[in-house]
Formats: sequence, C-alpha cells, structure tokens
Amino acid sequence: MIDKSGYVHYFDFSNSKRLLAIDANLSRKNNPSMLLPRLREEVLEANLELVRKGLVLYTFGNASGISRDQNLVVIKPSGVPYETMKPEHLIVTDLDGKIVEGSLRPSSDLPTHLVLYRAFPEIGGVAHTHSEHATSWAQACKPIPCFGTTHADYFHAPVPVTEALTDSEIASEYEKNTGRAIVRAFEKTSYASVPAVLVANHGPFAWGPDPAAAAHNAVILEAVARMAYFTINIDRAAKPIGGGLHDKHHLRKHGSNAYYGQAKEKK
Amino acid sequence: MIDKSGYVHYFDFSNSKRLLAIDANLSRKNNPSMLLPRLREEVLEANLELVRKGLVLYTFGNASGISRDQNLVVIKPSGVPYETMKPEHLIVTDLDGKIVEGSLRPSSDLPTHLVLYRAFPEIGGVAHTHSEHATSWAQACKPIPCFGTTHADYFHAPVPVTEALTDSEIASEYEKNTGRAIVRAFEKTSYASVPAVLVANHGPFAWGPDPAAAAHNAVILEAVARMAYFTINIDRAAKPIGGGLHDKHHLRKHGSNAYYGQAKEKK
Amino acid sequence: MIDKSGYVHYFDFSNSKRLLAIDANLSRKNNPSMLLPRLREEVLEANLELVRKGLVLYTFGNASGISRDQNLVVIKPSGVPYETMKPEHLIVTDLDGKIVEGSLRPSSDLPTHLVLYRAFPEIGGVAHTHSEHATSWAQACKPIPCFGTTHADYFHAPVPVTEALTDSEIASEYEKNTGRAIVRAFEKTSYASVPAVLVANHGPFAWGPDPAAAAHNAVILEAVARMAYFTINIDRAAKPIGGGLHDKHHLRKHGSNAYYGQAKEKK
Amino acid sequence: MIDKSGYVHYFDFSNSKRLLAIDANLSRKNNPSMLLPRLREEVLEANLELVRKGLVLYTFGNASGISRDQNLVVIKPSGVPYETMKPEHLIVTDLDGKIVEGSLRPSSDLPTHLVLYRAFPEIGGVAHTHSEHATSWAQACKPIPCFGTTHADYFHAPVPVTEALTDSEIASEYEKNTGRAIVRAFEKTSYASVPAVLVANHGPFAWGPDPAAAAHNAVILEAVARMAYFTINIDRAAKPIGGGLHDKHHLRKHGSNAYYGQAKEKK
Repeated sequence: MIDKSGYVHYFDFSNSKRLLAIDANLSRKNNPSMLLPRLREEVLEANLELVRKGLVLYTFGNASGISRDQNLVVIKPSGVPYETMKPEHLIVTDLDGKIVEGSLRPSSDLPTHLVLYRAFPEIGGVAHTHSEHATSWAQACKPIPCFGTTHADYFHAPVPVTEALTDSEIASEYEKNTGRAIVRAFEKTSYASVPAVLVANHGPFAWGPDPAAAAHNAVILEAVARMAYFTINIDRAAKPIGGGLHDKHHLRKHGSNAYYGQAKEKK
Repeated sequence: MIDKSGYVHYFDFSNSKRLLAIDANLSRKNNPSMLLPRLREEVLEANLELVRKGLVLYTFGNASGISRDQNLVVIKPSGVPYETMKPEHLIVTDLDGKIVEGSLRPSSDLPTHLVLYRAFPEIGGVAHTHSEHATSWAQACKPIPCFGTTHADYFHAPVPVTEALTDSEIASEYEKNTGRAIVRAFEKTSYASVPAVLVANHGPFAWGPDPAAAAHNAVILEAVARMAYFTINIDRAAKPIGGGLHDKHHLRKHGSNAYYGQAKEKK
Repeated sequence: MIDKSGYVHYFDFSNSKRLLAIDANLSRKNNPSMLLPRLREEVLEANLELVRKGLVLYTFGNASGISRDQNLVVIKPSGVPYETMKPEHLIVTDLDGKIVEGSLRPSSDLPTHLVLYRAFPEIGGVAHTHSEHATSWAQACKPIPCFGTTHADYFHAPVPVTEALTDSEIASEYEKNTGRAIVRAFEKTSYASVPAVLVANHGPFAWGPDPAAAAHNAVILEAVARMAYFTINIDRAAKPIGGGLHDKHHLRKHGSNAYYGQAKEKK
Repeated sequence: MIDKSGYVHYFDFSNSKRLLAIDANLSRKNNPSMLLPRLREEVLEANLELVRKGLVLYTFGNASGISRDQNLVVIKPSGVPYETMKPEHLIVTDLDGKIVEGSLRPSSDLPTHLVLYRAFPEIGGVAHTHSEHATSWAQACKPIPCFGTTHADYFHAPVPVTEALTDSEIASEYEKNTGRAIVRAFEKTSYASVPAVLVANHGPFAWGPDPAAAAHNAVILEAVARMAYFTINIDRAAKPIGGGLHDKHHLRKHGSNAYYGQAKEKK
C-alpha cells in the first residue's frame, strides 16, 4: 500500500483487525454513539504494535491519531495496562487538549502530541516510547548518524536530538515545551522525510500519515538505533554513508519514482 | 492505582490473581489454618513476576512481603523451582528469622530482607535478583547514573552501590551484614524515593510498599541499568540529567501533585 | 544429509514441509499449470526460515532459488507480509529479470541475485537480510575476522566486505552494480568456501547449493557476526585463528574427508 | 536436592520426564533390549535443556553421560535435529570410543568427552556448546574473571582458557588433543570446584556429577560470561572479588556446610 502522501505502508492489519472486530462490535453495541470508532481501533492497534515489537515495558509508551476533518485527537489513557485496553478506553480531545469523550485521564504526554499535530500538518499519528536503544542515544544527547541503507530507507538524514529544555521550560508547560523543542529541531529538516526525533535525556517520538505508520516508524527507529550502536562499537571512526547512496535508497521506497513494494492500488 | 503512601502501582494482578485463585482455594481446603493466605499469594505472584520479566535463571532470586500488623514476613523457600511453587510452600518467619510456619528452608538471603524491614519502616515488600545489567553495575562497583527520564520517573537520584564488606563481616552474619551495608548506603538518600540498591560484587535489591511494587521496581531497575550501559557505550562522557528535569519527572509520577496514571481511587 | 557438491545440510524440512503441503496442494488445484511448484515451496520456506530465526523485521529480506535446468529464478515479491505469503505469490523470472510467471513485483534486489546466479555457477539459492550484527559490520565497512571454530566451520576465510559503489554505479543499475561489487570481492576468494559477503553500508548476502542452504548460511553468518562483535569488545587486540585450526574445522565439515554429521545417503 | 558428592542440583526434571516417558515407553516396546534406557533419557534431556536455554543453534552442541558401573558412555549423534531426537537415536560407546550400540555416527567431539571421563573420575556428564558469550571469551583467549557472587556460587576460581593447540596436535587426534589441553588447564585447579573450561578459539565445555548438572553448569557459565562481558564494558578496570567473598558464596552452596537449597534427602 502506498498512500496519497507518498508514504509506503507495510503494516499488516489483517490479523489484528480481525481480532479487534469483536471488541469493536461489542463497543458499538454498548456505546452506539462513541466518537471516531475506526480511529479508536487504529490508535489501539498502534499502541499494541509497540508492545508486540518489544518497545514498551508495563504501561510505558503512547500512540495517538488525529481526525483532520473533525480536528479531534484519540490517545491512550495514562497508566492503564495494555492487556485489557479496549477502544472505548481511549480518550478523545480537541487540539487544545480539552476532553471531548472519555472518562479516564489521557496520557500525560498529550500536550507534546498536540504541538506536533499543529506544527506538522500532514501527519496523522504520533508514537512515543522509551525503546531502549533509541532512548540511549537520546540519553547520550547524540543524533543517530546514517550508517547504512536501513536508516536511509526510512530517514533521509541523521535522526536529530532536541536541545535540552531550560529550567523555566521544565517548570511550566513541560510537555508542551517538549513539543516545541521537537519542532525547533526540524527547522532545517523535513519532518516528512525524517519522521522521528530523539528528545534529549528522554526518548524518541515518531510520526507518520496515520497511527500505524507512526508505530511502524518507532519500530524501525529502534532497529536503526541498535545497529548504529553496534556499528560504533565495532569502529568508533565509522563514517556515515554518502549522499548518493542515501538518496538512492530513500527514493527507492518513497515518492513518485519508488519501486519498492507493490504498486499503489486505488481503494 | 495510587496507594496511601503516594506510590503508584502499575502492576496488573488481574490475570495472575485469577490463576492463583485456584491454587489458593486448594490450599485453604488442604490447610484451612494457613497463616496470611493473601500475603502468601502476593509474595508468590511477585516471585513469578521476576521470572516472567526474565530477571531470574532457574531458582535464582527471591521476593518477600511483610504484615506490619502481625510483624510476620513471608518469603520464598530456598532452591525450589518456580514452576511448581504454591502459596503453601512459602515460609512465614518473625522479624528475628524464626520460622513460624513452613516445612522448607527459607531463602538464604532472609536475614538481609529482615534488616531492611526493620530499618525501612514504610516498605511492605523486598525483591532480590541477579538480573544481568543491574548485577553488572554491581560487579563493577559503580552506582547507576541518572541519564534520563526513565530513571528519574522511578529513582530520584543515582542508584547507589554499597561498600564492600570486610572479611570479618563476610565471615560472620554475612547476610545480615549485607543488609547493614545497604542501610548505610541510604544514610543521605531516602529509601522511599530511591527504592533500590546495588550490593557490591553481588546484585540488586529493590523494595516498595508491597511485594508487587518491589518486583516492579526490580524490573524497572534492570531496564534502567540496561539503558545506562548502552548510554556509556555510546559516549563515555555522557552527563547525568539536571536537577530540574529529574525533579519534574519524579514528581509527575509520585507524591501529592502527581498527574501520571489514573487518579487515586478509594478502595 | 550431505549433497553431491560436498555441502552439509542441517536444515530440517520435516515440519515446514508438512505445513506447506496443504497450501501446495491447494495451489496446484487452483493453478495446476504453475511453474516450478517444488522450487517455489523451497524458496518460500527459506524466506520463512529468515523470519523464524529473527533475521528480518516486517517485510525486510528476500531469498530466491534457481532451476539450473530451466534457467528460471523464483524470488519473493517486494513488500508483501510473510504471514500471508503462499507459493503462488512468488515470482518466476528468467536470468535477465523478465517476469515469466507472477502478478506481483519481484523483490527490488532481484538484479543483485541474478548477477550472483550468473557469476557463481554452482549456487542454487541466495538470501539477503538486514540481520543486525552482520549489517553492523557492513555499516562499519569491516570484514568479519575468523576468531574461532564456529566461523571456520562455515567460512574458510574472513567474510569479505565489498568496496563502496561510486556515485555513477549508484545512479544507474544500482542493484546490478551491487552484484558486480560482490563478484569483485571474490576474485581471490572461493565463493564455495566462503558462502557470504557484506555489502558495504548495506547488509549481508549469503548463498548455497539450494535456497535452504542459503538461508542457513545467512543465519550462521549472523551468529558469527554477533560473536565477533563480542570478541572485539572483550579484547580489541584479539587475534584471528591460525590456518591449521581453520583448515581442520572447515574440512571436518566439508569435502570428501568430512566426518561431521551423518554419512551421505543416496536418495 | 543435594547429591552424595556434595553437588547441589536445581534441575527440574518434573515436566520433561513426564513428556519423555511416552517416548521411552515406546522405545522400550520397539527395542526391549536397548542398553542404559535411563541414562539415554538423561542425556537426551540434557541436550534438550541446552536448546531450551538458547545455548545452541541448529544441531550445534552435544551432551553425554557415563555409566561408571559399566564403563559405557551415551552421547548425542552428530548433526541430527534436536526436534526429532529420541532416546534410541543416542549412541553408546566404550571408553575407547568403540560403538557398542547405535546405528548413527556419534558427535565428532566424542573423543574430547572420553578424555574428560578418564581424567576426571567423579564426573557423570559433559556438555559442549558454542553459547555466544562463553565462546566469545574463548575466541578472545581470556579466562573469565570472577567479578561477583553469581560466578562464585558455581565456579571457585576464574574459568580457565586452554592453551592453543600446536599444528601437530591439530593435524592428528585433534579432538583427543582438545581433551588433553583441557586436562592440562586443571593441573592447579580442581575440576570439581570449577566445572567448566573455555577451549581457546573454540568454545566452552562444562561437566558435573550427571548429564543434567553438566547442562546446568553450561547454562550458568553462559550467564556468568554475559555478565563479565557487561562488567568490563562498564569499567575496563573492574576488579575480581576478594577471596573471602568468593569462599563464602561457594561454600554457602557446596560442601558439607552448605545452607542454600533444601536439605539433602535420602532417596
């Protein structure tokens, strides 16, 4: 699948969708007027993908999605176990963070997600984890260099690290200021061609045209971070790849001349 | 869930409790007068959580819990396989280590647990493992620096390492002296805000308001130890995070102004 | 099993073959004239082995096989999930890459596979992955030294790394030029006794007398790459093994005097 | 369980024994005169334990056991998949390696096992793997220092590494000379208190009073090797533990004053 913005989606919904259908039917019966039932399922599924791929411990991590038509965001509740999470547990808020539907507290990182949805108009989903290798690069306050084609396939530049927040940025509106620091890290880099960032001393955020793509990019980021870690521990002087190879691999997968994956189908 | 001491509990008992209910019913039938049946289940479950999260090999590790009302401790027996352990296999002792109920030997680390229960009056559970990254920091006799918010969320300072025991402390009352060395490492640090320690050349102990929280903190400690390991192998000169960020993250989760997780419910 | 070219096969087809038999019967019923049904099953199975052994994420990686009688190659389609892949999804092409049977796009790395089939006349299968340790050596542009007998059992020299492609080699016929760079890396090394290579800044390719052996060699390469990584992180000055031990182990498993595994049986 | 030689056994046979009982009954029906049926089951089970604990890839590794009464050894066949291995596939040989029962080739490392059974009269089982961290220390030709109590609990000194074999030792009787190099490494160390060795540039051998203990020690060795690896990558100057702590932990588990595990029971 290649969607209209040129992103390639490899995400296989077939299995999870089938399983979720049961809950979703149930939810609709119990709560026929629940807002955004399909986006809720996509956001729940994106959260579960982070668990399945080993990116989260306990209740760490959160993924969200946005309906651009309605300007409403669906996000995971805070501190609720993934094992028992259902679409109706998710929270619907507006772009100011006001809860529109839901009885639980939203993830405490919600304000960061909202800043990204406002600043990056083409994204449809955001995922945040403490996945261990991406987080370790963030803890070392180092961007992830592009050492190979796996990185180039997904990220068309090093994955940047934000500047540390000042004490006053931490003291007030901490989560919103985290979002602003991310936006500043993309002043000279396209958020569409580098769909992830490392928040200094904290961990990664990733995004994409929908929640599934955001989770997928978070998974790839961790794999890329692992291999960059191994690479520098083989050779501290390892050099990033040249621009020609970087462009070749990125454009093999993305954009109008992409020739990886199956041709775009009309739905 | 947030309990009355301000600790947040993320531990999901739903599944394990159901499974244990069968054994517990059985136990009570077989042994209707068994002491502390609920604490036994909590201690068994905490021991099994260490297994499920990959912190123990074979019969390594041990978790215990205390009834502050009755001044009785429940602890895992020594060298018994986890697969077949049942609540009635656990040992009940008083705070001097005298066996009150149970036909098996208690874990050989029992005297260390008892010193902690006496010195740290607000804790309700203790967990000891040889989890590999926390143990490796203990083997290197280095405290774990706070490199990021994952650490700050749980431990409000570096995780300290004890001083090595002297030969005479090893020769006599070794396990009790291990506990005393732990207590000395907390002379200037609050055991409530840093609920874990590295015993030099040995391995970690963690604690919390109940056995589940102790096991949970042992799991988080291992994750934090892994990421600190990766961080210094990315950059030997990596710097610990500033106090402002440390406070922010710790207090986001703990204490009266916490806003992570769902609001405290009355039981 | 030892086949007529002297390669030893440890690959256990028993389980997978049984499972595949169902699909294969189905396929043949649906499409009785499908070309090369047995090679399709072998190629599918080789692709699945890469997944089972943890060498691929999502749709990464690809394995192929060749019928030397018919000069036809069977390869995985590009970007299709492994979970739902069936023999009839695979693509049959000639040695120029012209599709002979199949409605999906072949893997974008097909031209690299074809160069290898032309240049290395005794191979029957090729596997390409981004397995993390082999890829990390490729990203560091370092050959994998032979530090021990595990390496020597399979690879009778260091695993070589290709030279980086020039910008003009990248700009035009990139995948074919990748194959040519591999062939150049074997000018002084036998592709039969070192059945794998690292493509600089990209990842490993492995091969063998059939698709199963190619996948098997890709799995072993990753294990050897992991242990070489650990070895240099124990001692940066670790020395490769001597020629006597290297020969001994390689010839214990391969060639006419091999005495590892069970004696060759006539089929 | 503590057996009469003072070794502690943590190995839980309960599950595997039940499963094997089916095969064993079957075997006995098919082959009522099969030699050493119980030792065959123990050796098979020890081999499977190496697989379950992640110490072997494909058909790597081998475990054996000896009947001291009959001077007969039972060992795994060479290059046969573990998944389909049954007690009747194992090979029975005398101490010269002459096959007494069995139609398959024994493991090619048999002569090494036989040297150990002759030189170390109290052992009842031997296990050899290419487990990745122990093998990496062997590839670096470095003994594993005793950095902590996990090591001390099982190995009462550093785990030694053999000297490299000379070219003439490799050229003739290679496997027997490997055994002799192991024996030489124990001239000043007790094989009973350090039940494992690293063969230079090759991998580990472990042993114990029976096949289960040999496999158990191979598993512990890998865990100890992993943690020693992490320890030196935290601090290259990490120091081995003192003799007092080493003795304390070793003797807490082994010998007449052991107080770890449950008291020895008469069978």
